[in-house]
Amino acid sequence: MSVGVNGRAYELPRQPTVVITIDGCEPDYLDDALARGLMPHLQALLAAGGAYERGRAHMPTLTNPNNLSIVTGVPPNVHGISGNHCLLDARSEPVQLVEPEFLRAETIHSAMRRTGCVVLAVTAKDKLRRLLGSGGVASVSAECAASLSLPEFGIEDIPSAVGRPPPSIYDWDLSHYALEIGLAAHRRRAVDLLYVSLTDYVQHKQPPGGEMADRFHRRLDDVLGAYVEAGFRIGVTADHGMHAKPRIHFLEDCLREAGFSADSFQVVLPITDPYVVHHGALGSFAWVYLASTDQVPAARNVLASLAGVEEVYTRAEASVVYEHPVDRIGDLSVAADADTALGQSAAKHDLSLVAGGLRSHGGRHEQIVPIIVSQPLTAAYAARHRRGVANSDVHDLLLNGVGELRR
Amino acid sequence: MSVGVNGRAYELPRQPTVVITIDGCEPDYLDDALARGLMPHLQALLAAGGAYERGRAHMPTLTNPNNLSIVTGVPPNVHGISGNHCLLDARSEPVQLVEPEFLRAETIHSAMRRTGCVVLAVTAKDKLRRLLGSGGVASVSAECAASLSLPEFGIEDIPSAVGRPPPSIYDWDLSHYALEIGLAAHRRRAVDLLYVSLTDYVQHKQPPGGEMADRFHRRLDDVLGAYVEAGFRIGVTADHGMHAKPRIHFLEDCLREAGFSADSFQVVLPITDPYVVHHGALGSFAWVYLASTDQVPAARNVLASLAGVEEVYTRAEASVVYEHPVDRIGDLSVAADADTALGQSAAKHDLSLVAGGLRSHGGRHEQIVPIIVSQPLTAAYAARHRRGVANSDVHDLLLNGVGELRR
Repeated sequence: MSVGVNGRAYELPRQPTVVITIDGCEPDYLDDALARGLMPHLQALLAAGGAYERGRAHMPTLTNPNNLSIVTGVPPNVHGISGNHCLLDARSEPVQLVEPEFLRAETIHSAMRRTGCVVLAVTAKDKLRRLLGSGGVASVSAECAASLSLPEFGIEDIPSAVGRPPPSIYDWDLSHYALEIGLAAHRRRAVDLLYVSLTDYVQHKQPPGGEMADRFHRRLDDVLGAYVEAGFRIGVTADHGMHAKPRIHFLEDCLREAGFSADSFQVVLPITDPYVVHHGALGSFAWVYLASTDQVPAARNVLASLAGVEEVYTRAEASVVYEHPVDRIGDLSVAADADTALGQSAAKHDLSLVAGGLRSHGGRHEQIVPIIVSQPLTAAYAARHRRGVANSDVHDLLLNGVGELRR
Repeated sequence: MSVGVNGRAYELPRQPTVVITIDGCEPDYLDDALARGLMPHLQALLAAGGAYERGRAHMPTLTNPNNLSIVTGVPPNVHGISGNHCLLDARSEPVQLVEPEFLRAETIHSAMRRTGCVVLAVTAKDKLRRLLGSGGVASVSAECAASLSLPEFGIEDIPSAVGRPPPSIYDWDLSHYALEIGLAAHRRRAVDLLYVSLTDYVQHKQPPGGEMADRFHRRLDDVLGAYVEAGFRIGVTADHGMHAKPRIHFLEDCLREAGFSADSFQVVLPITDPYVVHHGALGSFAWVYLASTDQVPAARNVLASLAGVEEVYTRAEASVVYEHPVDRIGDLSVAADADTALGQSAAKHDLSLVAGGLRSHGGRHEQIVPIIVSQPLTAAYAARHRRGVANSDVHDLLLNGVGELRR
């Protein structure tokens, strides 16, 4: 039995099924942790027939657009979430894209719920909770676990159900708490389809092999083991990768120096979210809005000439090349390379927040993400997986691509 | 009744159905021709409920990869045709990717044929004929029409069936001859699913509004009218756009000037095909193979510093970002902007062939293509079409997306 969602049919889960989105999981983190034996449960899962390949995240490589692609199975031009943050019209202030009314596609979880499946979405950062809860899906965040409840699972007090108080938003361990909420809910009432989205505070702060990064991956592996033990079919992917970005261009300053008057343009950074300690709102993707479309060619030349800027597209080009919703992007879309971040003006960013060295994402070079499935895939799906799929295909792989179980 | 092809189900055609790929059809050509009243049949078809939007071609924006994406419904990492031309291994000479054994996915036409449908593929340029004929699909080219036959349609002599001899490969009218072959075959034996791929000689030579370009589009519209008259459901798309490219970088020369020895690298231009008069083998996409992977970072820096070069990706990055088959691309993939073409060395290209001004394609800026469907789409497919689909979705739109006929 299957349900159609956004043009694709998904088989209903035949066992408890979870997709885990490791926020900012550049594949090097997992490869390094596996090579050094820090993730024995993941290693065992792969040795038993699971599959791990690298796949593609959607542009811009940011949390909200990719989480929504993962739960809807479609790119941003269909689901409408173009960034963490965007202008709804050129004369307005930017808004955070966090409300369900911004979402233009049904989630897989909402459709499964309509068929009677038990579904749950858990997110580390509260900013995703309402979007993931679209269509009546039970949803909760680790960040606000102390003040939220999960009545659908008979849980009044989440910290009691988990067995410990929630860590802070800037704690290495908040992601694991989100995973523990999922397990706690499942113990009360068996879940059919669970989604757990982590946070990338650790990845913003440390490269693979850092002490905190190691701690993060060891603990992640423990919790993965608990999901295996609880009988879950498991998919793992990421919303985006992560790179050190030693070079920063402040685009408002660049445009002013090139002769653009301050009121003739607006730079919008779609990475912007409430969690500024992670990245100081600096990433490798920016939108530029111009007071007059006559200025598009001149502004494009200024931006394209910056070292490390790789792509500058008009609105029409970006909507096609990136599969972006044309009404929720700038007159120009700007993407920078692995080493380069884009800001508004030097005065507007507090660089002391990233004094340890900026690590961030948003561009093409953070499009490479792990795509892991815990069970052997059918031959046709295994071939697709090897040849490259997007993170938005992980529910398709996990629900449609796994043959008879070996358990 | 439907047939599954590469992970998608396609309804069998309920009326004669044709997809026409206008080679090199930058959308401006159609917009300009429609605005000036040169295409009354297309105008009427759109006024009667047909739908025209801009969509996305696959990278590199070249003929073979995109034609194969259109007929298989999947990107190059699945179908395997990464260019017109590629290295099969790093120590070999480049090959033209024209033989069916290079194709890794079944075509929609081959699958339809297995169900008993009458299918036919017609191409202007012979270079696509054998690939389109994969799986036993009847296929023919306008270029070689004088020496080919179509026994499946009872046609021994194609020029007699069409009623005129074929124009030369460098004639403005060869594309229309390909369309006439399709109509002639259909008159002998009703076809269920027809594919006609044109040639971009005219688009390489003239921008919208050029005298030959106008003649091309007027005549194209006449033939479109004949297809409407013959009762066809019609899809129209393009394999890539087209731009004037006044700037050329010769990458072998650039690498040598930067200190790379001549035997340490190889530049492969995937646009390369037998039709050099079109473009002199100059387009906006190149692969660089390096004798040692140690040289990748240094070569990347040299290439990325060239004005107009927008993207330089490693093999692993390109396979993900572009959805390319990892074994059929270079150590580095290089893409240039709308104004910039990439060559091997000044000595290896005969620029007299493009003395009228190079117009070419291959990069991101030629990803924007028209996607036209002659019948009203269902609400769900109309929404997808508006929000942006790829040229590889045109058979899905045409076979699955059209509701009850109004005829």
